[in-house]
Amino acid sequence: MENKYPMSSVPNYKDVLSAHERIKKQILKTPVLSSSSINKITGASLFFKCENFQKVGAFKFRGASNAVLQLSNEQKIKGVATHSSGNHAAALALAAKKSGVKAYVVMPENAPEIKKKAVKSYGAEITFCKPTLEARENTLQELIKQTGAVFIHPYDNAQIVSGQATAAFELLQEYKDLDIVMAPVGGGGLISGTAIAAKAFNSKIKVFAAEPEMADDAYRSFKSGILLPSVNPNTIADGLRTSLSELTFKIISDKVDNILTVSEESIINAMRLIWERMKIIIEASSAVPLAAVLEHPLIFKDKKTGIILSGGNVDLENLPF
Amino acid sequence: MENKYPMSSVPNYKDVLSAHERIKKQILKTPVLSSSSINKITGASLFFKCENFQKVGAFKFRGASNAVLQLSNEQKIKGVATHSSGNHAAALALAAKKSGVKAYVVMPENAPEIKKKAVKSYGAEITFCKPTLEARENTLQELIKQTGAVFIHPYDNAQIVSGQATAAFELLQEYKDLDIVMAPVGGGGLISGTAIAAKAFNSKIKVFAAEPEMADDAYRSFKSGILLPSVNPNTIADGLRTSLSELTFKIISDKVDNILTVSEESIINAMRLIWERMKIIIEASSAVPLAAVLEHPLIFKDKKTGIILSGGNVDLENLPF
Repeated sequence: MENKYPMSSVPNYKDVLSAHERIKKQILKTPVLSSSSINKITGASLFFKCENFQKVGAFKFRGASNAVLQLSNEQKIKGVATHSSGNHAAALALAAKKSGVKAYVVMPENAPEIKKKAVKSYGAEITFCKPTLEARENTLQELIKQTGAVFIHPYDNAQIVSGQATAAFELLQEYKDLDIVMAPVGGGGLISGTAIAAKAFNSKIKVFAAEPEMADDAYRSFKSGILLPSVNPNTIADGLRTSLSELTFKIISDKVDNILTVSEESIINAMRLIWERMKIIIEASSAVPLAAVLEHPLIFKDKKTGIILSGGNVDLENLPF
Repeated sequence: MENKYPMSSVPNYKDVLSAHERIKKQILKTPVLSSSSINKITGASLFFKCENFQKVGAFKFRGASNAVLQLSNEQKIKGVATHSSGNHAAALALAAKKSGVKAYVVMPENAPEIKKKAVKSYGAEITFCKPTLEARENTLQELIKQTGAVFIHPYDNAQIVSGQATAAFELLQEYKDLDIVMAPVGGGGLISGTAIAAKAFNSKIKVFAAEPEMADDAYRSFKSGILLPSVNPNTIADGLRTSLSELTFKIISDKVDNILTVSEESIINAMRLIWERMKIIIEASSAVPLAAVLEHPLIFKDKKTGIILSGGNVDLENLPF
């Protein structure tokens, strides 16, 4: 991708602090919730950072805001572009709108109506393409050639990673004595940022990624030391079907202590537990860390664990229970 | 009911203040949430007091706590009793458990398994009966005769009303300049308490009750000045199918400014709006006030309105969308 947003160096804690200063007026400082009944069931002590309450319903608004707020004036005139059928597209569209910047989004023509509607409602210009990765990339490349818009990759981008890191940063400002911090891993933007923030805050904090067994590319990459792609990921946690990037794989290899994989059944159990006991709506991807607590209770017993709930965008007509 | 909990006088603001002092260590001070997108859709400015996050998932724990914490030592030994298949039974069971008091609950044998389980999990002793009001009352009367337990009515009880009032009291402590306060009306315990708290805080605040058209006994009673029963209530808002009592009808007649009735369609739309936009789980009864805002937008335009979200206990396998 010729016009790829120039970004290669790995972000550090200073970048996270700057990101937080930059975006804090635009994002929501989401609450941290606990559930005595879930703690009783798991024997753990869990602190949930509720990014399901974030604008556009996901942590993605943090990274997108951080990237858009660093555009030059010239870049602002040309706009931003991405391909995504998920939360990143909506987040980029809203962040762009708030800065008066045009957003171009390439979406597969078979994307759910609800997602098309959300992205459109934030004022983005959508270009539809055939539902293949090749079509997406070609369509985006063509669009960028025509418009000169800046490509904002959903996670292979240091500004995005620094922005996503601010969720864990806020969590640790509020709960300074956590033993473990855990986030789900898909493309790796959230867990990379989480690991940078947590290890810099206190190098003794253990950082775990939680991943569906059915989309375990991060686990296989982490264990083998080679960046391996996601192959036919078939998990209900639709936000976690993507593959790691060079950038996120490097950060995860350096800073994440372990990756815990979980079954689909555990994900659904965990999702249901959070809905029923905490009375909050989370998407399946958000349930993956609690699924890891359910499957590996001894790791978390009597430990204080912070969990990033990544988002709350679900199709109410298509629930797993 | 011979052993009916002795209560006749209408509670006042001093009772609400005492109730709050009494129960505040035992209840959760629930958060107040707003949604910019719901405000945009409605043209209103809404502040939702989230009693769906309250212990046992409903405001009912406030009143039950207030009643149990005022038992004499002799009454504590004998225990408390009620008949209910809803949130009051669970609330009374937990409040009793926290005071080391035995709770007896009469439930219809066809009550949903999930409700039986919840009440049992708080340690109450359940007596099942045929699913008629007569069977419930007879079974309860028999139980009280045998045990000497104190009957705690779900709303025809001044201590219960004073306890429910503390939700609006907390809301107004946090948002002092509300123009309107609204709560759903079923048996009337919540709206009675809400009206007492709001009118004493500032007599200029308008207090509205919201009620399903399909269970409009409070509306008909309010308009006619005669306490009329609920007849074949057939609403999705299952918490609002009960009739007013003498006590709650008196308070509502004195202090509530108006009762707004809403269609089933509006209730489901409002419920869905809160789930999708606020990412929180509420039961249908909680959606009735927002349904009133949707049906009567001019009343709420540019006004600051506080809404009590009464509870969040839903059967995930039986959703209306």
